[in-house]
Amino acid sequence: MKAVGIRNGKGGADALFLDDIDTPQPAPHEILVRVAAAGVNRPDIAQREGNYPPPPGASPVMGLEVAGTVEAVGAAVTRWRAGDRVAALLPGGGYAEFAVVDARHALPVPESLPLEHAAALPETVFTVFTNLFERGRLTAGEAVLIHGGNSGIGTTAIVMAKRAGAKVFTTVRGAGKAAAARDLGADHVIDVTERDFAADVSDAGGVDVVLDVIGGDYFAGNVSALRPDGRLVQIATLGGNLVEVDLLTFMFKRLTMTASTLRGRPADEKARLTAAVEAEVWPWFATEGLRLPLNRRFALADAGAAHRWLETGAQFGKVVLIP
Amino acid sequence: MKAVGIRNGKGGADALFLDDIDTPQPAPHEILVRVAAAGVNRPDIAQREGNYPPPPGASPVMGLEVAGTVEAVGAAVTRWRAGDRVAALLPGGGYAEFAVVDARHALPVPESLPLEHAAALPETVFTVFTNLFERGRLTAGEAVLIHGGNSGIGTTAIVMAKRAGAKVFTTVRGAGKAAAARDLGADHVIDVTERDFAADVSDAGGVDVVLDVIGGDYFAGNVSALRPDGRLVQIATLGGNLVEVDLLTFMFKRLTMTASTLRGRPADEKARLTAAVEAEVWPWFATEGLRLPLNRRFALADAGAAHRWLETGAQFGKVVLIP
Repeated sequence: MKAVGIRNGKGGADALFLDDIDTPQPAPHEILVRVAAAGVNRPDIAQREGNYPPPPGASPVMGLEVAGTVEAVGAAVTRWRAGDRVAALLPGGGYAEFAVVDARHALPVPESLPLEHAAALPETVFTVFTNLFERGRLTAGEAVLIHGGNSGIGTTAIVMAKRAGAKVFTTVRGAGKAAAARDLGADHVIDVTERDFAADVSDAGGVDVVLDVIGGDYFAGNVSALRPDGRLVQIATLGGNLVEVDLLTFMFKRLTMTASTLRGRPADEKARLTAAVEAEVWPWFATEGLRLPLNRRFALADAGAAHRWLETGAQFGKVVLIP
Repeated sequence: MKAVGIRNGKGGADALFLDDIDTPQPAPHEILVRVAAAGVNRPDIAQREGNYPPPPGASPVMGLEVAGTVEAVGAAVTRWRAGDRVAALLPGGGYAEFAVVDARHALPVPESLPLEHAAALPETVFTVFTNLFERGRLTAGEAVLIHGGNSGIGTTAIVMAKRAGAKVFTTVRGAGKAAAARDLGADHVIDVTERDFAADVSDAGGVDVVLDVIGGDYFAGNVSALRPDGRLVQIATLGGNLVEVDLLTFMFKRLTMTASTLRGRPADEKARLTAAVEAEVWPWFATEGLRLPLNRRFALADAGAAHRWLETGAQFGKVVLIP
């Protein structure tokens, strides 16, 4: 089958090429999915650069999410059968014509939800659900600050937080993305090329939860933007990972900081999470018609161009590859 | 009435003296308690030193907890009547013959629970309940590391964590306190004058929750002692409040850090907390007979001696004043 390889194992976007590799075979607990679309995410770029190696047992091919149709099922799989439409979270292997998936990490995709939209959901929907709702405990009526409101995570978080009844603050760079974030439903959009987010958010009363992918210089502003009993949820550190914390500030404001990654979690935990997503938020997309902005589609052979596009930071929403 | 004053408003333990002040009158939502015993806590020392001023509206007199009998009730109070035995959490005013208490912040004390024991409960039981169980989410079968296992907070946390079904690690200074912590029920006691707690805890498999009053140099050890999905609960910073955090470590271990103080919380929140304590842990003491170690009793006139005793760090358990 065709799959995206990385020349010399790591490198720039130019190192990506369309390779011919063996089609994977499903283990007894797995399903084989014929990929209709594969989501492209920032961690894929880190993997391409050699900074985010696949966990043990995962495919060396990039790609953390796909949607498609079930081609074959392992002997122990009872829920799925050939022809079923599914979306799935993967520890790797999505940039390919076929991918094997733990049967417990797949979700059903109705005809009303196009597969290229479904492919863009798992990585960011699971990430936002577990971080914003489970760990960050965001509830209806609370306010949340979402950094990078144009990114895959950012657009997903805006859409899901609004659907959950929260008031949404978001940061973006530039007037065009600010307008798009407003169109997406954000209540208060801050263009950080022009304004100080911490001052803006504090002036507006602060927030109960911050979802941050920056860290570094943003950390102090995040802490000051939080209301008493606020929660800072850290899911990436694009701006640096070492920060100074004043524990007394945390005590007097009764703050909580929580952080996590998704990919490294045990398969059983991902199965629990998949079931929770299916019960609590999947119906928003599968039956209510909620959609994330699908920014661009690239052919599988153009994975390098897709990475370059994400690297510009100009995207608004998700990017998918079409095998 | 008699109450403990501080000469010149702040100073060393010698600045404490027995003053004559007006007996407070209960507001409509308050009760007046004839104090049988008043707990002595470390924040009282910070207040004496001028580093922990009473919140707005609180008595300038030290003392965060009392037990005694209801002397009078405000016009709006329906739950309590004169003669009732109660223990209560106060924002101040405990070091006195009488104290006024928000009626919602009092708990019933049965005849089987001596008032001098009951007086030693509210501050540390509320603190441990809200931090270890509510914010730290410690559950049966999990492991917890409790620093300063000889202190009021430490002994309370050991007793409550064991009762809740957790495995308890604790740190103390010296062989005598180590033996006492073992007698109190701690499963794994680390004498930090002889051993490195972080290495010891990690060698034993790590913990799910750390309850820490030190901060500073303990912070890195706390982080390394935590298992994946662990929670660090910071409730004081006796060793320093500024620490460096590696957000990537927090992400990869999926850690949570939460911090809080009790005294500054709004009265409504304390009422919610009192009700939760009454429902979930008060029966351990009021009906099951669970007791905290009562280390020493001092006369109200000897409050300075009580502070000096706490300042030695030699205590094991709680200290109370008897008016």
